[in-house]
Amino acid sequence: MSTVSLIQYEDASPEVKAVFDDIMQTRGIDDVNHFWKALAHHPELLKRTWEQLKVVMAPGALDPLTKEMIYIAVSIANNCEYCIHSHTASARAKGMTEAQYQELLAVVSMAHFTNALASGMKVPVDAAFDAGQS
Amino acid sequence: MSTVSLIQYEDASPEVKAVFDDIMQTRGIDDVNHFWKALAHHPELLKRTWEQLKVVMAPGALDPLTKEMIYIAVSIANNCEYCIHSHTASARAKGMTEAQYQELLAVVSMAHFTNALASGMKVPVDAAFDAGQS
Amino acid sequence: MSTVSLIQYEDASPEVKAVFDDIMQTRGIDDVNHFWKALAHHPELLKRTWEQLKVVMAPGALDPLTKEMIYIAVSIANNCEYCIHSHTASARAKGMTEAQYQELLAVVSMAHFTNALASGMKVPVDAAFDAGQS
Amino acid sequence: MSTVSLIQYEDASPEVKAVFDDIMQTRGIDDVNHFWKALAHHPELLKRTWEQLKVVMAPGALDPLTKEMIYIAVSIANNCEYCIHSHTASARAKGMTEAQYQELLAVVSMAHFTNALASGMKVPVDAAFDAGQS
Amino acid sequence: MSTVSLIQYEDASPEVKAVFDDIMQTRGIDDVNHFWKALAHHPELLKRTWEQLKVVMAPGALDPLTKEMIYIAVSIANNCEYCIHSHTASARAKGMTEAQYQELLAVVSMAHFTNALASGMKVPVDAAFDAGQS
Amino acid sequence: MSTVSLIQYEDASPEVKAVFDDIMQTRGIDDVNHFWKALAHHPELLKRTWEQLKVVMAPGALDPLTKEMIYIAVSIANNCEYCIHSHTASARAKGMTEAQYQELLAVVSMAHFTNALASGMKVPVDAAFDAGQS
Repeated sequence: MSTVSLIQYEDASPEVKAVFDDIMQTRGIDDVNHFWKALAHHPELLKRTWEQLKVVMAPGALDPLTKEMIYIAVSIANNCEYCIHSHTASARAKGMTEAQYQELLAVVSMAHFTNALASGMKVPVDAAFDAGQS
Repeated sequence: MSTVSLIQYEDASPEVKAVFDDIMQTRGIDDVNHFWKALAHHPELLKRTWEQLKVVMAPGALDPLTKEMIYIAVSIANNCEYCIHSHTASARAKGMTEAQYQELLAVVSMAHFTNALASGMKVPVDAAFDAGQS
Repeated sequence: MSTVSLIQYEDASPEVKAVFDDIMQTRGIDDVNHFWKALAHHPELLKRTWEQLKVVMAPGALDPLTKEMIYIAVSIANNCEYCIHSHTASARAKGMTEAQYQELLAVVSMAHFTNALASGMKVPVDAAFDAGQS
Repeated sequence: MSTVSLIQYEDASPEVKAVFDDIMQTRGIDDVNHFWKALAHHPELLKRTWEQLKVVMAPGALDPLTKEMIYIAVSIANNCEYCIHSHTASARAKGMTEAQYQELLAVVSMAHFTNALASGMKVPVDAAFDAGQS
Repeated sequence: MSTVSLIQYEDASPEVKAVFDDIMQTRGIDDVNHFWKALAHHPELLKRTWEQLKVVMAPGALDPLTKEMIYIAVSIANNCEYCIHSHTASARAKGMTEAQYQELLAVVSMAHFTNALASGMKVPVDAAFDAGQS
Repeated sequence: MSTVSLIQYEDASPEVKAVFDDIMQTRGIDDVNHFWKALAHHPELLKRTWEQLKVVMAPGALDPLTKEMIYIAVSIANNCEYCIHSHTASARAKGMTEAQYQELLAVVSMAHFTNALASGMKVPVDAAFDAGQS
């Protein structure tokens, strides 16, 4: 159950269709995934979200697969079911091996482990970590 | 303010000193950071945590810098102040450039953005993402 | 799957029935939603929760629709599936338009975006924001 | 302590100065707050964040004060210290009364309360809440 | 820095003083802690919060120390600095030993660890766990 | 839908079978639950996770039921569906009564309530809570 219906391409407004077209062309696919069809109820938000995502996930100082794995890490921490599935599928499509996936899960779970310990004891930050201004 | 005091090397039990020694040797440093000094109140937990972390963060299918960035991503999502500082410092020490840091922050914040949208609308997961069993 | 069964009106104790009756009368409905039927296993908790909620959500300095939208915002942040659905339905029943819903989602997702940036960089709070005591 | 230093206007690049100028002009203030000075290390991210925020927080189907209160609600749920302070100050500057603030806190805390109950018992969603597709 | 000032007993309204008196009498202390002084800006919320807390934390099917440790666990997960400090102090005042505290931290951190794994892989719930209705 | 398939005993590697055997023997059951079957794709992570969990959940300064309830509290805060179900079932198997479960839910939800208030107002920590070093 979702809070909005999914808007299919043929039922979309020209504004929405333009975004859908750009997503399909950029990704080389012939249909957009549910996230965009749900967001299509909000054309302005749809457009801004896609344009942001396209910039953020493009190759840059970090390669696309690393970005996907960082995306998965955040999605697990937020426990966003949709995002975990979409970005895990996407990471695999970009070449994530099972060994990399195992290590990703190992790092993510270990981070949750030590995060809980450091937050639980409220460990004071070492002065040596200071890179900005106290 | 923290919930426990920090145990310095000279005041530590032999069991704790052994872990501190291994941390310093593994990392090539001459003092351990506060996290370990706080955890030293709980020698068994200290030992297990360090042994886990050493294995998880070692080079493998993912390189150490990628692992640090994933660690930062989780720590931001959990808003663990200590962990954000320690792992950002650690990532920089392992060569993270400012351009990489900018992209890391961009991916992490964008993931929080779309996580909120997908969770907020409870978008149904696409069947195409299925890699396991429904 | 839930951790408790749902207790229907006809199977409820007099104490639970009294709460159910008050919910139905207050809301002008003829059956209570699942949340209350699950909570009915814990009559005291059921009673206190309902009495709190009735006070908190009543019209006051904030109007009921604004309260529902704030409730949705928290429920998205906590990713409480049940609460997202029940309060989105409730907000719509209280007149939330699609344009308002679009803006609500836009604000909520943007807040997650900048929350991640501010927490990730641990930006020091401006003295100008101080309204209490430092 | 923050992970980056704050970049002051006089030390900023022309690209950053342009964003700072727009923030000051839009808000009618003569200096930007720390968040933007920290983000100035990442000019592209700074620019996109500000442009997004300007659109999202502008008056629309929801009034600016309601948007600030929704922002506070999310910031509390994420426990973003900076954001709680900046948006609480901002809401007050936009006219939030103490009575409204009390009710905002009451709704936010109550939402956390029932979120925990509904998530803890994994209450099945009522079919009546369905507004999209099951 | 907090978003409100602290209201001292001598400056409090009769309604607030009555709550402060009950807190002090119930706990056998001669001043209330900061939480209540901050909440005193919102007398109705103060009163309801205290009355709830008094009932919830009273001895019952669970003993008070167990309740404090559960409270700490939630506070760590939410990373509520104030709550971690106040409830850790409270648990120690109620007799929590260092050995118990070590095990509490060990369970809490392990729970975060496996929570991340189960959420990250979206493991399907075993039918055998069903205690309610599917 | 999960991100990995479940590996059954008969299809498992000897390394995985050894862990499965130890889980079944330790718990006195004749099949492991889904969590372990999913984790079996990552034999090293499976082994370390199980060995950690076995140590952490063993009787010690805290009894096993108390540990399960703390585990539930964290799982609710993280909203880990699988973990909520598995540990609620486990707590019941270890003797958690309905009265204890009601109080557990009451404490957990109340903790979320006051966590939100304390974090929302950013209440300054009382000096009296200091047990470590400021």
